[in-house]
Amino acid sequence: MKIGIIGLGRMGGNIARRLMRAGHETVVFDRNQPAIEMLAAESAIAAASLEDMKSKLDAPAIFWVMLPAGDPTEQTVTSIAALCGAGDIIIDGGNSFYKDDIRRAKTLAEKGIRYIDVGTSGGVWGLERGYCMMIGGDKDAVDHIDPMLAALAPGLGTIPRTPGRMADDGEDARAEQGYIHAGPAGAGHFVKMVHNGIEYGLMQAYAEGFDILKGKASEHLAEDQRFDLNLTDIAEVWRRGSVISSWLLDLSAIALAKDMTLEDFTGSVADSGEGQWTIDAAMEEKVPANVLTAALFARYRSRVDHTFGDKLLSAMRYGFGGHVEMPQ
Amino acid sequence: MKIGIIGLGRMGGNIARRLMRAGHETVVFDRNQPAIEMLAAESAIAAASLEDMKSKLDAPAIFWVMLPAGDPTEQTVTSIAALCGAGDIIIDGGNSFYKDDIRRAKTLAEKGIRYIDVGTSGGVWGLERGYCMMIGGDKDAVDHIDPMLAALAPGLGTIPRTPGRMADDGEDARAEQGYIHAGPAGAGHFVKMVHNGIEYGLMQAYAEGFDILKGKASEHLAEDQRFDLNLTDIAEVWRRGSVISSWLLDLSAIALAKDMTLEDFTGSVADSGEGQWTIDAAMEEKVPANVLTAALFARYRSRVDHTFGDKLLSAMRYGFGGHVEMPQ
Amino acid sequence: MKIGIIGLGRMGGNIARRLMRAGHETVVFDRNQPAIEMLAAESAIAAASLEDMKSKLDAPAIFWVMLPAGDPTEQTVTSIAALCGAGDIIIDGGNSFYKDDIRRAKTLAEKGIRYIDVGTSGGVWGLERGYCMMIGGDKDAVDHIDPMLAALAPGLGTIPRTPGRMADDGEDARAEQGYIHAGPAGAGHFVKMVHNGIEYGLMQAYAEGFDILKGKASEHLAEDQRFDLNLTDIAEVWRRGSVISSWLLDLSAIALAKDMTLEDFTGSVADSGEGQWTIDAAMEEKVPANVLTAALFARYRSRVDHTFGDKLLSAMRYGFGGHVEMPQ
Amino acid sequence: MKIGIIGLGRMGGNIARRLMRAGHETVVFDRNQPAIEMLAAESAIAAASLEDMKSKLDAPAIFWVMLPAGDPTEQTVTSIAALCGAGDIIIDGGNSFYKDDIRRAKTLAEKGIRYIDVGTSGGVWGLERGYCMMIGGDKDAVDHIDPMLAALAPGLGTIPRTPGRMADDGEDARAEQGYIHAGPAGAGHFVKMVHNGIEYGLMQAYAEGFDILKGKASEHLAEDQRFDLNLTDIAEVWRRGSVISSWLLDLSAIALAKDMTLEDFTGSVADSGEGQWTIDAAMEEKVPANVLTAALFARYRSRVDHTFGDKLLSAMRYGFGGHVEMPQ
Repeated sequence: MKIGIIGLGRMGGNIARRLMRAGHETVVFDRNQPAIEMLAAESAIAAASLEDMKSKLDAPAIFWVMLPAGDPTEQTVTSIAALCGAGDIIIDGGNSFYKDDIRRAKTLAEKGIRYIDVGTSGGVWGLERGYCMMIGGDKDAVDHIDPMLAALAPGLGTIPRTPGRMADDGEDARAEQGYIHAGPAGAGHFVKMVHNGIEYGLMQAYAEGFDILKGKASEHLAEDQRFDLNLTDIAEVWRRGSVISSWLLDLSAIALAKDMTLEDFTGSVADSGEGQWTIDAAMEEKVPANVLTAALFARYRSRVDHTFGDKLLSAMRYGFGGHVEMPQ
Repeated sequence: MKIGIIGLGRMGGNIARRLMRAGHETVVFDRNQPAIEMLAAESAIAAASLEDMKSKLDAPAIFWVMLPAGDPTEQTVTSIAALCGAGDIIIDGGNSFYKDDIRRAKTLAEKGIRYIDVGTSGGVWGLERGYCMMIGGDKDAVDHIDPMLAALAPGLGTIPRTPGRMADDGEDARAEQGYIHAGPAGAGHFVKMVHNGIEYGLMQAYAEGFDILKGKASEHLAEDQRFDLNLTDIAEVWRRGSVISSWLLDLSAIALAKDMTLEDFTGSVADSGEGQWTIDAAMEEKVPANVLTAALFARYRSRVDHTFGDKLLSAMRYGFGGHVEMPQ
Repeated sequence: MKIGIIGLGRMGGNIARRLMRAGHETVVFDRNQPAIEMLAAESAIAAASLEDMKSKLDAPAIFWVMLPAGDPTEQTVTSIAALCGAGDIIIDGGNSFYKDDIRRAKTLAEKGIRYIDVGTSGGVWGLERGYCMMIGGDKDAVDHIDPMLAALAPGLGTIPRTPGRMADDGEDARAEQGYIHAGPAGAGHFVKMVHNGIEYGLMQAYAEGFDILKGKASEHLAEDQRFDLNLTDIAEVWRRGSVISSWLLDLSAIALAKDMTLEDFTGSVADSGEGQWTIDAAMEEKVPANVLTAALFARYRSRVDHTFGDKLLSAMRYGFGGHVEMPQ
Repeated sequence: MKIGIIGLGRMGGNIARRLMRAGHETVVFDRNQPAIEMLAAESAIAAASLEDMKSKLDAPAIFWVMLPAGDPTEQTVTSIAALCGAGDIIIDGGNSFYKDDIRRAKTLAEKGIRYIDVGTSGGVWGLERGYCMMIGGDKDAVDHIDPMLAALAPGLGTIPRTPGRMADDGEDARAEQGYIHAGPAGAGHFVKMVHNGIEYGLMQAYAEGFDILKGKASEHLAEDQRFDLNLTDIAEVWRRGSVISSWLLDLSAIALAKDMTLEDFTGSVADSGEGQWTIDAAMEEKVPANVLTAALFARYRSRVDHTFGDKLLSAMRYGFGGHVEMPQ
């Protein structure tokens, strides 16, 4: 197939590469000219503008937008839509808020444009491992781009198959290949959003666990209660036969093998929206989500020295007990 | 009554004063000689040692130990016990762990010494307001010291009586005076421990709320979404007719009235043991206590710049997405 | 002053009464005719419709809407606005979402209508105690209705004044009377929203603490580790001189004095929106709020028997360890 | 090697089998005679008692105790120790509290008995996958049993090696084989304890995520906001190329493939001690661990219908607002 890709950053560039490796043609555009040239050197077709891209695509035209969520994606989708007619397909492969998808799909449907949202997991490893994709949109459009999706997905690979699947009950055969059609527009990003919410929770569980391992050598403990544990070896051993083996643990083991002190990192941790939206969804549904929320808040907390709330605690303690603050 | 008081810090000194104002006699001792002299100048009887104190008390001797929990209290109780005989009373008015009380009471009972644990709330305000006391120990001993307890307690005062109390069912008439006999040895400190656990939770609820009020002016929000709220006035207005009025809010209002920025405080917040023991108790009982625990952990977190766990989060994010850390 | 009140439920009815006691005139309307008649019998002026109410008010007309947040308030404000002209005042005294206030104020301002949002705390006790009010809107409008607000507020009463207030720095003298002008439209409900968020946190702190007290008699503990504590007396004693005394504790003491088992309650606990919005605000501001969130989630959890997540935990445990579930 | 195994349940029986497959000899004992006979039929040597086992072992004798933590393990270790002399080795392969290990090792060392604690992860899958083992004790003893440990461990297998390991810095080569010597007595169980604490956190992160996915079809949402998601396919697709792939997710996929409703499970979830001890350790070290704690408390909560705290919340809400409870 021939596909236009807008946004050639870490994710978009590799998506173009993986598609080309599978024999698909890509027409590529980015605000940043060198990014286009780099892909063109790998046999992608360079586009000078969205209009140019449109003219270089077959009908129906297929656009894959791979930009930061929010304004960049919104504006680009709008610009592309202005060039499109009935049957054309616009895919948002970024991390958009799923309610934006629902809105956009409705608006674009009035012109006959087909909108697909693809939640894409895999990070910088996706070029080699393939991308796990959660897809929302109309069936005919999702079916139309299936060759592309199949090329991007990891495929069965060496991962053992799940016993009991596909016995009977209308499961999606694509799931084993690493992509699913999750539901109507928005469903793809909704599932990806929850994926990231879970990701925050898993990461924080490991973070707290390693904190406790490291803290076992701390001066808060009597000397005969301390262990000086080798965190690198512990991460490695847990990868092998333990209940908590995972890809995030693999990554932790790599980082710790490189430097057990992790001193290259300050510990100021970003969050990218999906964690917050996951909590919003939980609250709308009235689902308690203490772990996912605590994981998100740990990131907020990592980015400030002291909260005003902390100061108020100290002020109250001074107020009732005359307590002065601890030296830090 | 005549009572020996050991430990003349913020709490012990004022307890002696409040007892003397009510006409009781106190014999006082502290490692710190000037503290003894200050009380002696207010007509307390100075003791040069525990032995000297014992010799100046009537029989049965009554000792009130008001020292930091842990070793200082343990050693002092042991030293006093060595001087005592059947019928004498040792009161631990500090913040001891209730399991230590249970153990001590059992040991001392073998010599006929009566052990009473008194959880004492009221802080630096207790001299004027009186002390709220939660008491554990044998009935006869607690009854014996009742005149002292009544003098220390706030009494009915101006606080409205609770409708429906004392209709019938074996309630403790002393509760309205501000002290109760909670149960056998350990029960006093157990109730006080939970009191402090709740205190942490209440404080953190206010802290988070004021953080959110203050954050409403932050640059995380679009400019037309910001409010620049007067926290001093808000604390004041909530004192008057709102559902969340409380003494801790009164203290917050005082602190904010003095300086709305609270810039005299760094926000490094101590915890004194009871919060942790409360969570231990919850876990032993299999009671979920998310709020009390989160309040405790907020204090731990306030005392470090970055956790090792935070660094591990950043390392994982770099590992899967090539993400670099946010500038703080 | 003369004021129209729409919505004569628990809150609106008593607000009318408290205004009339202070000598103000009220014109009242409710969907429910008997509610109107009851107030009319107490010398309110009955209105047969919003139009009728408008005709019975002086210029500028003042409407106080006291209805459930969401559609009921939205539709009523819209209907009233259609009857109003420049200078008229519409007050939303309910629990509206503050972003709705910002939007409404902007829309109504185009017609010259003045919109005021009043967050009102005090519950069923407000008639006697007065209402704590947090107010958003333009200064001239808020000043215009000041006589009304002063009548509704608790006033100085017997609550001790906060030392250090009003020394200098532009504080709001009304705060000591129990109401403040918090800022532009939306600011009133924003402050009230955070108030309720804090309220959830405070309530849950007490709930967990009493759970731990009660659990001290549970069979999870060895028999010699149990205390059978009198929760009624404990609630009472904490009201008197302790650090955690508060109005919510007073209410707990009343409930426990009536029945220490609380068996009239099932423990299925509602939430009314503000808790959720408070967490939304925290996330928008990137403020960690673990306690307020845990308090909200405890309510969600109280309303289901088992979550699907719980079942998944059991399924995983069976998967890796062959564990079967505990009998409950 | 020849090794005595006490406790032939799910874990102990398979450990014996895996050792025998690797050519080691096992002498087996269990309170339950049929369990002995089953292993004997697979060529283990049956022991009629601990004394009998001792007589059938070579010197130094090696005992592997695989019993529930607490009294069963304590009593058995004590009984074995009475039969042992200098140089004999007692291994506790169960889930003992690490402070018990420290104490036991010290006591047994007085008689020259060598005590080793082995935290063993792998569950019912360990027979085939091998066991991940975290080991505490003196170096000479751990080295002595290395052939056994190597046989039990998973070995390198098909799991990709961690880039950057073993470059230089004193890492433990055994980690890649799936076992480590973590430190002195207690260190093995300490690391395994934290492993289980993390496990609880990971499990709860998935549980909450799937709860939110399922809740997206709930009546709390407007009809046009609902998605009816196929959880089975989602679990499957996340196994393939996503950031959150893990063994626990594999198990979830298996369970959901069997029955997407999970209706065979009630959702009453046990905890086995390590989660609680992990929180104890965090508190001793002053490390915040909100996620691990929330995961533990979710299990406590899953085992009760309503907490007393929930009832108190309802009582307070009735008290201040006249609110009655929601129908559940």
